[in-house]
Amino acid sequence: MISAGTRGVYAIAPTPFLPDGALDVASLGRMTEWYLGRGVDGLTILGIMGEAQKLLPEESLTVVREVLAAAGNIPVVVGISAPGYAAMRRLAGEAMELGAAGVMMTPPPAMRTDDQIVGWFAGAVRAIGDDIPWVLQDHPTVTNVVMAPDVIRRTVTDNPSCVMLKHEDWPGLEKISTIRSWQEAGEMRPLSILCGNGALFLDLEMGRGADGAMTGYAFPEMLRRVVDLSATDPEAAADIFDAHLPLLRYEHQPGIGLAIRKHILAQRGAIAHRDLRAPGPRLSRAAEAEISWLLRRLERKDPVARM
Amino acid sequence: MISAGTRGVYAIAPTPFLPDGALDVASLGRMTEWYLGRGVDGLTILGIMGEAQKLLPEESLTVVREVLAAAGNIPVVVGISAPGYAAMRRLAGEAMELGAAGVMMTPPPAMRTDDQIVGWFAGAVRAIGDDIPWVLQDHPTVTNVVMAPDVIRRTVTDNPSCVMLKHEDWPGLEKISTIRSWQEAGEMRPLSILCGNGALFLDLEMGRGADGAMTGYAFPEMLRRVVDLSATDPEAAADIFDAHLPLLRYEHQPGIGLAIRKHILAQRGAIAHRDLRAPGPRLSRAAEAEISWLLRRLERKDPVARM
Amino acid sequence: MISAGTRGVYAIAPTPFLPDGALDVASLGRMTEWYLGRGVDGLTILGIMGEAQKLLPEESLTVVREVLAAAGNIPVVVGISAPGYAAMRRLAGEAMELGAAGVMMTPPPAMRTDDQIVGWFAGAVRAIGDDIPWVLQDHPTVTNVVMAPDVIRRTVTDNPSCVMLKHEDWPGLEKISTIRSWQEAGEMRPLSILCGNGALFLDLEMGRGADGAMTGYAFPEMLRRVVDLSATDPEAAADIFDAHLPLLRYEHQPGIGLAIRKHILAQRGAIAHRDLRAPGPRLSRAAEAEISWLLRRLERKDPVARM
Amino acid sequence: MISAGTRGVYAIAPTPFLPDGALDVASLGRMTEWYLGRGVDGLTILGIMGEAQKLLPEESLTVVREVLAAAGNIPVVVGISAPGYAAMRRLAGEAMELGAAGVMMTPPPAMRTDDQIVGWFAGAVRAIGDDIPWVLQDHPTVTNVVMAPDVIRRTVTDNPSCVMLKHEDWPGLEKISTIRSWQEAGEMRPLSILCGNGALFLDLEMGRGADGAMTGYAFPEMLRRVVDLSATDPEAAADIFDAHLPLLRYEHQPGIGLAIRKHILAQRGAIAHRDLRAPGPRLSRAAEAEISWLLRRLERKDPVARM
Repeated sequence: MISAGTRGVYAIAPTPFLPDGALDVASLGRMTEWYLGRGVDGLTILGIMGEAQKLLPEESLTVVREVLAAAGNIPVVVGISAPGYAAMRRLAGEAMELGAAGVMMTPPPAMRTDDQIVGWFAGAVRAIGDDIPWVLQDHPTVTNVVMAPDVIRRTVTDNPSCVMLKHEDWPGLEKISTIRSWQEAGEMRPLSILCGNGALFLDLEMGRGADGAMTGYAFPEMLRRVVDLSATDPEAAADIFDAHLPLLRYEHQPGIGLAIRKHILAQRGAIAHRDLRAPGPRLSRAAEAEISWLLRRLERKDPVARM
Repeated sequence: MISAGTRGVYAIAPTPFLPDGALDVASLGRMTEWYLGRGVDGLTILGIMGEAQKLLPEESLTVVREVLAAAGNIPVVVGISAPGYAAMRRLAGEAMELGAAGVMMTPPPAMRTDDQIVGWFAGAVRAIGDDIPWVLQDHPTVTNVVMAPDVIRRTVTDNPSCVMLKHEDWPGLEKISTIRSWQEAGEMRPLSILCGNGALFLDLEMGRGADGAMTGYAFPEMLRRVVDLSATDPEAAADIFDAHLPLLRYEHQPGIGLAIRKHILAQRGAIAHRDLRAPGPRLSRAAEAEISWLLRRLERKDPVARM
Repeated sequence: MISAGTRGVYAIAPTPFLPDGALDVASLGRMTEWYLGRGVDGLTILGIMGEAQKLLPEESLTVVREVLAAAGNIPVVVGISAPGYAAMRRLAGEAMELGAAGVMMTPPPAMRTDDQIVGWFAGAVRAIGDDIPWVLQDHPTVTNVVMAPDVIRRTVTDNPSCVMLKHEDWPGLEKISTIRSWQEAGEMRPLSILCGNGALFLDLEMGRGADGAMTGYAFPEMLRRVVDLSATDPEAAADIFDAHLPLLRYEHQPGIGLAIRKHILAQRGAIAHRDLRAPGPRLSRAAEAEISWLLRRLERKDPVARM
Repeated sequence: MISAGTRGVYAIAPTPFLPDGALDVASLGRMTEWYLGRGVDGLTILGIMGEAQKLLPEESLTVVREVLAAAGNIPVVVGISAPGYAAMRRLAGEAMELGAAGVMMTPPPAMRTDDQIVGWFAGAVRAIGDDIPWVLQDHPTVTNVVMAPDVIRRTVTDNPSCVMLKHEDWPGLEKISTIRSWQEAGEMRPLSILCGNGALFLDLEMGRGADGAMTGYAFPEMLRRVVDLSATDPEAAADIFDAHLPLLRYEHQPGIGLAIRKHILAQRGAIAHRDLRAPGPRLSRAAEAEISWLLRRLERKDPVARM
């Protein structure tokens, strides 16, 4: 189970599809093993970058089952965000029964005021039950829901089962500092903070007090080393981070980013096909050439990235 | 089957729930009969006002099956909009197999430019098959997708299976005129236009060339008479419309509107319970008193509205 | 000066332009007198419906000067919202020096969280000075800034110079009730609440505890009588309101609404020309015919509306 | 004058303020000379990053006058975007009379459909006159106006005075390729493309066919070398770009980014004070420490960046 003390690297895994759009069930186990081989501490599935919204419920369940079967003792967090609580309750229950380590959720775009957001989370916890450890995802660039630090504090205070923040506000560094300062002053209980947003600020987020990364960058090995080195040798951590930043920035483009990530993951053997399920973008020849160029440049700086 | 020649009144039916949030299966048939008794030409289910996004897939299927069973020969349109084409394809197939008269769809909020919207509809038709008659829903106040008239024309031209526009732009009167003028000039093929947006402009929309109404106002009898009278006696149509406008405007409030509608429909016996599924708003005592006041005033002007 | 005890009808005045887009200075005094002749208690100028954002600073000042000169003892509120505090400070200072009764302001769209909105108002009061009575405009349908009731309470509590709420949330009835219940419980200081949003809910807003109307509907005479009668004879107030609702709803269309309002105000002789300054919409022939039709129907129900 | 053949580096200059918020007039000339000393081909002032929306008209004019006086023969582009055409016309006229090389404009957020955007630009050109060379700014992350490539083509085709695209869509690489492919096919006339968006993709934008950069990154020397080397030695260009990317990414944060940029520019001696005009963010101590750390790391990689 995830807890307020969880630290390290959780990879956001994509959902593999066949070129015809069908779920690539055979790839799920292999992909899970591939991530384990990269040294991650956990996995997160069915997030926004997992194309969860395009899956049928039984497909979501298949993803959960296959990944959990291959993950062994490695904790797996399952994204359950949906427009209605009913679908969230069902998926949360199924996932936990199958052995998930927790669930992740974020409110729909209509939530605007502080009270609306706090109320939505309260209702969600009533729906799924207050015994499931969960991750509060704060991702305004995608959801358009802007959470003040105090909204997070209120939600964490009201809901003991909330144990982690998936931090991906942009800019977001001050938010980490605010939460950590409240905790130091005894004004907020402990909370794990794992950082997303494509890892674009991971080097600095660790210095602000984050506990690690939860994101889908195609080289989890980079996340691993940056998180591990950040406390003891921040310069070395930054050297590794900087080597990856040109590619990471390229992968972090809205809309097209997941297609880039899957293209690289397919090249690396993590998944069999790079296809997104429709509707979704495709890479142009020019984009493919740019990825190759960025990968070649990365290889020269970081041997781990040798394809 | 709906067609480009479809005219009249299609009621947008809500989805009935029990107070505990479970689908009220028993009410589905009764509700359908209630609408038939109000003289509607057709029904539309699983739209935005049908809380479709909060249903589990098997619940959606139950709604379709029960309503179709009770509807007999009356055509039923099924809303299938979803974040992914896979769910749309499945529901469209199931609904048509069960006897639906067509499906309705509208793009997700991320669609912004003309080409993006046209492309989304093209992909949707590829997904569901080009042999299912469908309704293009143009509802920017809820979806935040703004469609220029030419986007509708391009979509209608590219997709012969698109036979109807559910018109609910606001303001939207000029859009009807533009489409009708293109059709008169031979620059666009025939298309049924049924108007939604809570019927807030139905009196004038008929004068602009609409073929009828497709909306969920709690007194379909009003829609019926306004649509029927609009060509022959627009003053009489307007008198009826105006009598209902104070209540109609009250029901048309964003966010809280469906709770008002269900409150009245429950009072009228169309559904057993007024409850929305969570997350959803509840009416205050003050709101209930306002509805009673507006209903009493309406009764004095329109005997049909006697509760 | 406006105060927390201000009640009655404040007309939102448009800004008159010549057909070539120049400010119609000559109309300003006449328009002001026209409004006074309709029995309003005050005027509000340079609001969103006053096309304030399209004016040059010296034009804004001319509007303030001319209207104040003609208004005599009638209080005039001046809208000062702008992207920067510097422009707000200058216009507020000039307006008060010329004899304005107060200013009105609302935050820019980027304000999202409760704290952001409260902070923006605090900064605005620092900029303009804490001795100018001001109106907090809550208008999410135009500004996209959603204010929880508590944001209004915090702002009112923090800023003694805030004396009035221009209430135009939609739906907004519960917000009035919430504020009034806090005040009854001694948890919030007195505050005038005048309702806008085109008067679409004025009949019911008065019942919730509003102090009057501040809006620009082209028949201020209706606002006057509804506000006056609402406490003593709500049925009579509602009869008058209902007679106007078909036209009022037509005027309340986003985007095109101001063109409709100016068209009627020009017909009524309040302004010389109906033109909006570019960029702005124009009415089609069909829209003009609809207005004539609605006016003719209105005349039959309310003799005051005879053109 | 700028033209469709303009190439190179245009620095987006900030507007310097004194700590009390007053315009820092004395810094304007010095800042201009500082930029010239960095080898830029031109300057752009009064853009979004120039806090143009917070300036009073006479302040805008002072900025234009002082910068033009110091710029000598170097072309200066003046941002004129405003909610109304009247303000745009005046500033455009004044700027050109003072010797500006052209103006830049972008539509307000309400513009959504292709036709709305094309129509807004057409109206703007009518307002300012068709003899002023102008830059079409495509910046959806700030304006929320999404322009399809064809909207740019239509606008460029309809308005011969449009000579340049300030490209800052995100993702935006395909947009450059699309425009260049149309031009190669003879389906669109020549157009200068200078890239903004904080230079986050400048290395790759040059490869897609851009003519240079127009952005405000605090080290214009980097832009200079990347633009110059991109055609002849893209690896060397990328090496320089990559060295700056960690800082550039930090400066490119929404909301707080300009405060970071001004902090560095003040350290570099380009402006006397780092202050933004209210309302605007301030840097925390932690942020200042992060900038220092990033600058120290940058110095080690690029001697030009030695402070």
